[in-house]
Amino acid sequence: MADDTGIDALIDLMARLPGLGPRSARRAVLVLLKKRAQLMAPLAQAMAEVALTAKDCHVCGNIGTSDICSICADPQRATGEICVVEDVADLWAMERGQAFKGRYHVLGGTLSALDAVGPDELGIPRLVARVADEGAREVILALNATVDGQTTAHYIADALAPSGVQITTLAQGVPIGGELDYLDDGTIGAALRARRRL
Amino acid sequence: MADDTGIDALIDLMARLPGLGPRSARRAVLVLLKKRAQLMAPLAQAMAEVALTAKDCHVCGNIGTSDICSICADPQRATGEICVVEDVADLWAMERGQAFKGRYHVLGGTLSALDAVGPDELGIPRLVARVADEGAREVILALNATVDGQTTAHYIADALAPSGVQITTLAQGVPIGGELDYLDDGTIGAALRARRRL
Repeated sequence: MADDTGIDALIDLMARLPGLGPRSARRAVLVLLKKRAQLMAPLAQAMAEVALTAKDCHVCGNIGTSDICSICADPQRATGEICVVEDVADLWAMERGQAFKGRYHVLGGTLSALDAVGPDELGIPRLVARVADEGAREVILALNATVDGQTTAHYIADALAPSGVQITTLAQGVPIGGELDYLDDGTIGAALRARRRL
Repeated sequence: MADDTGIDALIDLMARLPGLGPRSARRAVLVLLKKRAQLMAPLAQAMAEVALTAKDCHVCGNIGTSDICSICADPQRATGEICVVEDVADLWAMERGQAFKGRYHVLGGTLSALDAVGPDELGIPRLVARVADEGAREVILALNATVDGQTTAHYIADALAPSGVQITTLAQGVPIGGELDYLDDGTIGAALRARRRL
């Protein structure tokens, strides 16, 4: 495409990123080529550094640049509450919400018989042990509202039942700024069933 | 966002690429973090290599990894035809068309009084000298069909007039697969004026 093996290889690699196809990868590489010193070199260095230093947190499964992630290492975060999420992306989304001040447990997926993902692959025994070790008061299951997510949530609730820890899940209802007319029927039904006094 | 300075810095840099905003940059970095060995490390290396080796071709202004780009260095390409394009992106687009077998001259922009881009910034004197040196038979002005592009094309045509070289421009008309109903009036008019015997 660029008639140059080095640049072509770079375009091919960029095209494998989500949200970039061959055409937009080409456009991105052209911008990089024009801003070699200001953008391309720093980006290459930042990427190499993170590739070298990124690791999964031993405690919660979050990705950071040390053995214990910044959330687990933060003494300000409450230790009694563990929020279970499917993915690091979900953890980041929760953090953007700035509403949760406890700690996390990242599953790395959902239970799936088809993909041979069982409780061990998701570290559920590790979660059960952690709840006992840390003497957690509450486990919040913040899994996606999909069939797989909810199946996994029910499995975890069953696995945690003997420990006596309080198990909660995110509320379902009308999103902030949401218009009823555009909501699906299931969400409206859930919001109605979970209605509260004003 | 990721509560980690290294990863946050990488997201910020990625978000400066065209086609990626803060949200899609985050998504791209998450994929990179999950594919550290298969994708992130090779991408960082390819980028660092190109950042170090990329340079503008002395002859035509194309970007490659050597002083003379692969097109100018190719003895198979006709020396008598020079195709003038605004940008390296346009050169790549011409190459994808696989119709042109000559060589290029990349202006790097268009004449613009507002942005203080004059003939010298675009290397037009260098083009005039090159046409004389190489004894070119034809100069094809493949500039964008915009006001700036056409102004620049006319300026170059005037500058090359004394050399006696044949000056041509890309045909305007209905694009392959185009439907008349969706074409703008200017294009239909241009296609009608340039109609040819079937």
